[in-house]
Amino acid sequence: MWDRIKADFSNWEAKNPIENTFINNCIFNADSLYESVAFVLSNKISTHLLIVQDWIQLFNKAYNNSDYLRTSLEQDLQAILDRDFACTRISDPLLHYNGFHGLQLQRLANYFFKNGIYATSSLIHDRMISCCSMDIHPAVPVGLGTVIDHGIGVVIGETARIGNNVFMYHNVTLGSNGTIGGDRHPTIEDDVLLGSNTSILGNITIGKGSAVAAGSIVTKSVPPEVLVAGNPAKEIGPAKEFQKKGH
Amino acid sequence: MWDRIKADFSNWEAKNPIENTFINNCIFNADSLYESVAFVLSNKISTHLLIVQDWIQLFNKAYNNSDYLRTSLEQDLQAILDRDFACTRISDPLLHYNGFHGLQLQRLANYFFKNGIYATSSLIHDRMISCCSMDIHPAVPVGLGTVIDHGIGVVIGETARIGNNVFMYHNVTLGSNGTIGGDRHPTIEDDVLLGSNTSILGNITIGKGSAVAAGSIVTKSVPPEVLVAGNPAKEIGPAKEFQKKGH
Amino acid sequence: MWDRIKADFSNWEAKNPIENTFINNCIFNADSLYESVAFVLSNKISTHLLIVQDWIQLFNKAYNNSDYLRTSLEQDLQAILDRDFACTRISDPLLHYNGFHGLQLQRLANYFFKNGIYATSSLIHDRMISCCSMDIHPAVPVGLGTVIDHGIGVVIGETARIGNNVFMYHNVTLGSNGTIGGDRHPTIEDDVLLGSNTSILGNITIGKGSAVAAGSIVTKSVPPEVLVAGNPAKEIGPAKEFQKKGH
Amino acid sequence: MWDRIKADFSNWEAKNPIENTFINNCIFNADSLYESVAFVLSNKISTHLLIVQDWIQLFNKAYNNSDYLRTSLEQDLQAILDRDFACTRISDPLLHYNGFHGLQLQRLANYFFKNGIYATSSLIHDRMISCCSMDIHPAVPVGLGTVIDHGIGVVIGETARIGNNVFMYHNVTLGSNGTIGGDRHPTIEDDVLLGSNTSILGNITIGKGSAVAAGSIVTKSVPPEVLVAGNPAKEIGPAKEFQKKGH
Amino acid sequence: MWDRIKADFSNWEAKNPIENTFINNCIFNADSLYESVAFVLSNKISTHLLIVQDWIQLFNKAYNNSDYLRTSLEQDLQAILDRDFACTRISDPLLHYNGFHGLQLQRLANYFFKNGIYATSSLIHDRMISCCSMDIHPAVPVGLGTVIDHGIGVVIGETARIGNNVFMYHNVTLGSNGTIGGDRHPTIEDDVLLGSNTSILGNITIGKGSAVAAGSIVTKSVPPEVLVAGNPAKEIGPAKEFQKKGH
Amino acid sequence: MWDRIKADFSNWEAKNPIENTFINNCIFNADSLYESVAFVLSNKISTHLLIVQDWIQLFNKAYNNSDYLRTSLEQDLQAILDRDFACTRISDPLLHYNGFHGLQLQRLANYFFKNGIYATSSLIHDRMISCCSMDIHPAVPVGLGTVIDHGIGVVIGETARIGNNVFMYHNVTLGSNGTIGGDRHPTIEDDVLLGSNTSILGNITIGKGSAVAAGSIVTKSVPPEVLVAGNPAKEIGPAKEFQKKGH
Repeated sequence: MWDRIKADFSNWEAKNPIENTFINNCIFNADSLYESVAFVLSNKISTHLLIVQDWIQLFNKAYNNSDYLRTSLEQDLQAILDRDFACTRISDPLLHYNGFHGLQLQRLANYFFKNGIYATSSLIHDRMISCCSMDIHPAVPVGLGTVIDHGIGVVIGETARIGNNVFMYHNVTLGSNGTIGGDRHPTIEDDVLLGSNTSILGNITIGKGSAVAAGSIVTKSVPPEVLVAGNPAKEIGPAKEFQKKGH
Repeated sequence: MWDRIKADFSNWEAKNPIENTFINNCIFNADSLYESVAFVLSNKISTHLLIVQDWIQLFNKAYNNSDYLRTSLEQDLQAILDRDFACTRISDPLLHYNGFHGLQLQRLANYFFKNGIYATSSLIHDRMISCCSMDIHPAVPVGLGTVIDHGIGVVIGETARIGNNVFMYHNVTLGSNGTIGGDRHPTIEDDVLLGSNTSILGNITIGKGSAVAAGSIVTKSVPPEVLVAGNPAKEIGPAKEFQKKGH
Repeated sequence: MWDRIKADFSNWEAKNPIENTFINNCIFNADSLYESVAFVLSNKISTHLLIVQDWIQLFNKAYNNSDYLRTSLEQDLQAILDRDFACTRISDPLLHYNGFHGLQLQRLANYFFKNGIYATSSLIHDRMISCCSMDIHPAVPVGLGTVIDHGIGVVIGETARIGNNVFMYHNVTLGSNGTIGGDRHPTIEDDVLLGSNTSILGNITIGKGSAVAAGSIVTKSVPPEVLVAGNPAKEIGPAKEFQKKGH
Repeated sequence: MWDRIKADFSNWEAKNPIENTFINNCIFNADSLYESVAFVLSNKISTHLLIVQDWIQLFNKAYNNSDYLRTSLEQDLQAILDRDFACTRISDPLLHYNGFHGLQLQRLANYFFKNGIYATSSLIHDRMISCCSMDIHPAVPVGLGTVIDHGIGVVIGETARIGNNVFMYHNVTLGSNGTIGGDRHPTIEDDVLLGSNTSILGNITIGKGSAVAAGSIVTKSVPPEVLVAGNPAKEIGPAKEFQKKGH
Repeated sequence: MWDRIKADFSNWEAKNPIENTFINNCIFNADSLYESVAFVLSNKISTHLLIVQDWIQLFNKAYNNSDYLRTSLEQDLQAILDRDFACTRISDPLLHYNGFHGLQLQRLANYFFKNGIYATSSLIHDRMISCCSMDIHPAVPVGLGTVIDHGIGVVIGETARIGNNVFMYHNVTLGSNGTIGGDRHPTIEDDVLLGSNTSILGNITIGKGSAVAAGSIVTKSVPPEVLVAGNPAKEIGPAKEFQKKGH
Repeated sequence: MWDRIKADFSNWEAKNPIENTFINNCIFNADSLYESVAFVLSNKISTHLLIVQDWIQLFNKAYNNSDYLRTSLEQDLQAILDRDFACTRISDPLLHYNGFHGLQLQRLANYFFKNGIYATSSLIHDRMISCCSMDIHPAVPVGLGTVIDHGIGVVIGETARIGNNVFMYHNVTLGSNGTIGGDRHPTIEDDVLLGSNTSILGNITIGKGSAVAAGSIVTKSVPPEVLVAGNPAKEIGPAKEFQKKGH
C-alpha cells in the first residue's frame, strides 16, 4: 500500500514552500506507511508542552508493536478509497482527512488504554478533540475498515462498541440515555451506516447491515438490514438500496 | 481539593516522556489548583503569537483576584465527579476534559469581559472555539457546579443566562430565534439538564429542575420540574426520574 | 474599510502583553486589510511543521493576485456588521470571529483549488477543520456578502454551491443523500437563511430568499421566498418576516 | 531600582511589533526587577525542549528564595552604570547586555549548584555558553558589583574565585595550568581589572586592586595594586591610573 | 546578482527534508536577494518571544528603504567570493557564513540606530551576539566590501570606524584603552587586513592598506601600507606581499 | 557504555520540570547512546525553520550507517572522562559539554560532507557556530579520542587535519597564514596538546606528542614530543611533563 501512496506523487512538483515541506516530510522522507502516519499525526497534535519528537517516537513504537494498529490503518484507508465519492487518491485521507486522522488517534489511544498507559491515552483523546473536533472514548473497540466521513461533532461514549465496515458521517452521537451507569452506550454491528447528525442513545444495538438516516434519533435496538429514520426513529424499509453504493 | 488531586498521583510512574512532562508540569510542579489549571489552559490555547508565558501570568492573576473564579472552578470539578459516570478521579477533568476546559476558559473570558478588558476576553473566546469546539459568549453568566459533558458543538449566545448545577451535553445551542435584537437568548434556571443535540431558541426560560431530552428543539418557555422532548418540544412527564441519577 | 477598522483602535490602550502583541501585530503594523487578515489567519493555522512565515507570504500573494478574494473579504465583513446583532465593531470579525475566519480560509483554499494547487488547497482545508471546526470543501463556490455565524459544525460537500448574501448559522450540513456520486450536494441561492442545526441533503435547491428554520432536515428542493421547518421540512409560510431583520 | 528602570520608558513609544512585544513583556508587565530579569533570561535560553514557562517559574522561585541573587543583581546593574562608558541607561544592561545576562545565568547556576540541584545547574551552564558565548563554571563564587563587559569568550574554570567589584572584559580565561587537579584555578581579589584577551592560569592570586593589561598571560601571582602586562606578564607600574576611571 | 545566486541551484536536488525546506524557503521562494537575506537572518535570530514573522517584515522594510543596506549587502557578498579561498559559490555566504550573517545584522542594527529606533537596534545587537558570537556596536559605521571571516569573538566598540574593503578574521578586538570616555575606539581605514586574534586598542588609526598580523596587540596608530606584528605590535615590513592575494 | 551512562541516573530524582523533561527524554527514553546523542544535539540546534524531528531522523540514520561516527562518539566520551579533571561522570559530557557537542556536530557535518550532501553539511556547520561558538570546517578529518575542552572560540580551517588523542582547549585557531590557497592549514599529529588561546597558522605540522602552551602563536612546524611557547613560539623543553597528567 505504501508504494501506491508514493505513486500518487511520482510526478509531483511543489508549488510553494508550505506544500513542499509537508509532502517531503510526510511522503518522500518516510520509509513506511506507519512512519508516515506517525509523522502526520504527531505534527497535527503536538503543542509547546507535548512536543512533536516525543509523539513521533511513541507512535512509531506503537505501530511496531501492534499488528492490529497496522492492519486497521491499511483497511481504513482502503475503505475510504472504496466508499467515499470525494476520494480519488489513497494518499489524500492519509495526509488530509480529518475523520481518518481522528479515527487513527482513537486507535492509538485505545492501544495505550488497553496496555494500562492511561495518562497517555487521555492525552491523545484530548488532542483528538482539540484537533479533529471528534470525541471517541479511548475504551471503545472499533472494527476494521471503518470510515468516519468529515468527523466533526462525532461523540462516542465509553462503553460503545463498533463492528467492522461501519460508515459514519459527521455529528454522530453514540451516547447514553443519561440515567444509568455501567454498560450504557450502543453496539454498532458490522456493515452499519450512520447518517449525519444522528443520535443512537442507550445500551441498544444497531443490527448488522442496517442504516440510520440523517438526523434520526434512535433509542431502541434496530434489527439487521433495515433503514430507520426520524425522531424517534422508525423502520422505513430495507437498508439495501441505501447501503449498496458508495458515499 | 488540591490534596485530593495530588493523591491521584501518589504512586504514579510515568510510562514515557509525553506523560512524564505533562504530569510533572501540571501536577507535581504546581502549588495550587489555580496554578495547575492556569498552566493546563495556557498550554492548550497558546500559539506562536499568543505566547504561553503571557497566558500563564494573566490567568494566575485572574485567579488570585477573583473569588468567583476559584469557587466555580472547585465546584465544577466536584460536580463532574458527582454526576459523570465516566469520571472516577477528580484529576481527570482538570487535566483532560474538553468540556471542563472550555467552561473554565469561558469563566476567564467572562471575568475579563466584566472588567472591561474586551480584547483579551475576545481572544480567549476565539481560542476556546479553536481548542474546545465550544462557543460560549464571554458575556454569559454561568452559575456554580456546572457540567458540560464533551462540550463539542456547544453554542451559547450573548444574552443567555445559566443557573447553578446545570448539566449540559454536547452540541447544545442556546440561540436566538433570529428575528429580534436585545435580550434574545434563553435563561436556564438551576438544576436543569439539557440533553445532547438540543436547541433552546429565543428569550425563553427553562424552569428550575426541568430536563430537555436529546435532540429536542425548544422555542417556548418550559415550567419547572418537567421533561420535554421532540421538535417542537412537548412536555412528556416529570423531570424527576430523568434527573435523579448521574450521567 | 481599512481606515474604519483602524478607527476602532484610535484610543485603544493595551491592558496586558497578550492583547498588546495581538493588536499591534494585526492592526497597527498592517498596511492594508489584506495584510491584516493574512497575518491573523496565518497565525491561527500555523503549526510546528507548516510555519507561519510561509503562510503569510502565500496568503499575501493570493490577495494581491485575486480581485475576488479582496472583494469577498470586504463584503463578508460588511455583511456581518449589517446583520449580526452581536457585532458592533467592524474589527471584531476580522480579529475574532470563528465563522468569518473559517470562511476566508475556504475562499483561500478555493483560490488555490481553482489554480490547480491541490496540496496547498487540501492543507488549508484541513487546518480550517482543526482550527475552526468547520469543513467546507475547497471546490465549493461561495458568493459575496456571506455570513457564517459561529460556524462550529458546518459541513459543506464538494459539489455544493452557495449564492450571494447567504446567512448561515452553526452546525449546518449541505450534504449528499448518500447514494449517488457526481453532482450530489445542494445549491443555495441568493439571500437564503439557514438556521442552526439544519441539514440540506442531496442535489436540491433552496430557492432565492427562502429560509430554513433551526433543526430542519430538507431533502427536497424549496421554492423561493418561503420558510420551511421540521423533519422532513415543510413549508410553513413566507420567508419575509423571518428574513427582514438582522440576526 | 525598579522604579528607575521603569522611568527609562516613561515616554517610550514602540516603533514596531518586535520592540513593542519585548518592552511590554519585560518592563511594563513585570512587577519587580527580579520578575523582569527572570523573564528576559528565560526567553533568551528557552528551547523547544527546555520550555520557557518552566524557566520563568524556576528563576522566579530562585530570586524569591535567595537574598544574594537579588542583591548581586542590583549591584551588578549599578556597577555597569557607574563604570561602563557606553551605558547611559540602567535598563540597557537588564534588557540587552550579553555580559550581564551571562553573569546572572552563572549566578543562578551557582545557586542551584550550591543547593545540590546539579542537572539544572548544568543545563543553565550549557545554555549560558550557547546564548552568551561565555563559559563560567557553576561552582565559581562571584562577588558583588561585578562587570563582565561584552563577555564573549570568557572561560572561567571550576575552582576559580572572584571577589567584589571586579571588572572583566571579553575573552578572559581563568584557567588551569593543565598539569594538576584539585584547586587549580586563579583567585581574583576585590577591585581587580582584567583586560580583554587575558589569560590567568593556575592556582595563583591577582591581588586586590591590581590590573592586567589586554592580551597578557599571567602564570604567577600578582601583588595588590599593580599593573601587569605582556606574555609572560610583568609588573609595569601601579594600577592606580589605569583603574581610577570608568571603562 | 540574484540570478547568479539562483544559478548555484539550477540542478540542485534535496537529499533530505532539512535541506529541502531550507533551500526552498531561502532560494526558490524568494523574489530578490534582499528578501532572501531577510528570511535567512530572521529565521536565525527569531525566538519564542521575538517572533520570526515580525523580523521578516521589519527587515524587508529596511532593505526597501535603504540603498546603502542593499549596496553593502551585494558588495560584501562579492568581496567574500573574491577574497575567501574557501568560498567557491556566491550562495554559500548568503546561506551559511557566520561572519557574513553577523555583519549584515550589524548593518541592519546600524540602520535602525541611525533612525533613532534604539530598542530595535539593541535587540538586533543582542541577537547577533547570541547567534553569531560577534559583538559589533550598532553605532559603528562600516564601509563597503567588508569581509569578516568566521567572525567568532569579534568585538568592536561604540566609537570605532571601519573603511571600505576591510578584511577581518575572527577574534578581532577594536577596543578602548580603558581609561577615557568619548571617542575612544580605533579607526580602520580602507583596504586594511586584520589577522585573527588581534587587538587594536584606543583612539588610534590603522592606515590605508596596512595589515596587522595574527595575534598582535596594537596600541599606537599605524601608518598606511605597512605590516605590523607582535605585542606590542611593531612594523616589520610593507603590507604589499601580505595583502596582495586572497585569504 | 550506554549502561554506564544510565547507571549515572540509577537513583536520580528530578528536582523540577526542566531537568525532569531533559533527563527523561535524553536518558530514560533512549534505547542507545547513539539515539541519545542524536536527541540531545537535535534539540540543541533545531530552529523554527530547521525542525527538530527532521534533525533527529537525519542523525539517527547517520549513526546507523557509520561505524566511524559510533566509534568516535564512544572514544571521545571516554577520553573526556579519562583526561578532564572537572569530569567525574560519563553522562556529563553527553548531556552538557559544549566542546563535546560541537565536536560531534563536526563529525556529523563531516559525514555528510564526505557523502556529497553539502547543503546539510553546511547547515550543521552553521548551527555548530551559533550553538557552540565553535567553527570547525566540515572537511576536516578528526581522529579518535579527541577532547575539545570548553570549545568556545575554536576555529579550524578547511584543509586542517587532526590525529588521534588530541586535547585542545578553547579559543584555538588552526588557521591559514593568509597568503596562499590550496593546502594551507596545519596538521596536528596524534597525542598533541594545544593550550587555550593558541594559534597554529599555515601548512605546518605539530609533531606527535608535542604540546603548545597557552597563548602561543606557532607559524613553523614543531617536532614531536616538545613543548613550545610564546609569540612566535619557541621550544622550551620536552612535552612529557606537561602531557603526562589529565587536564
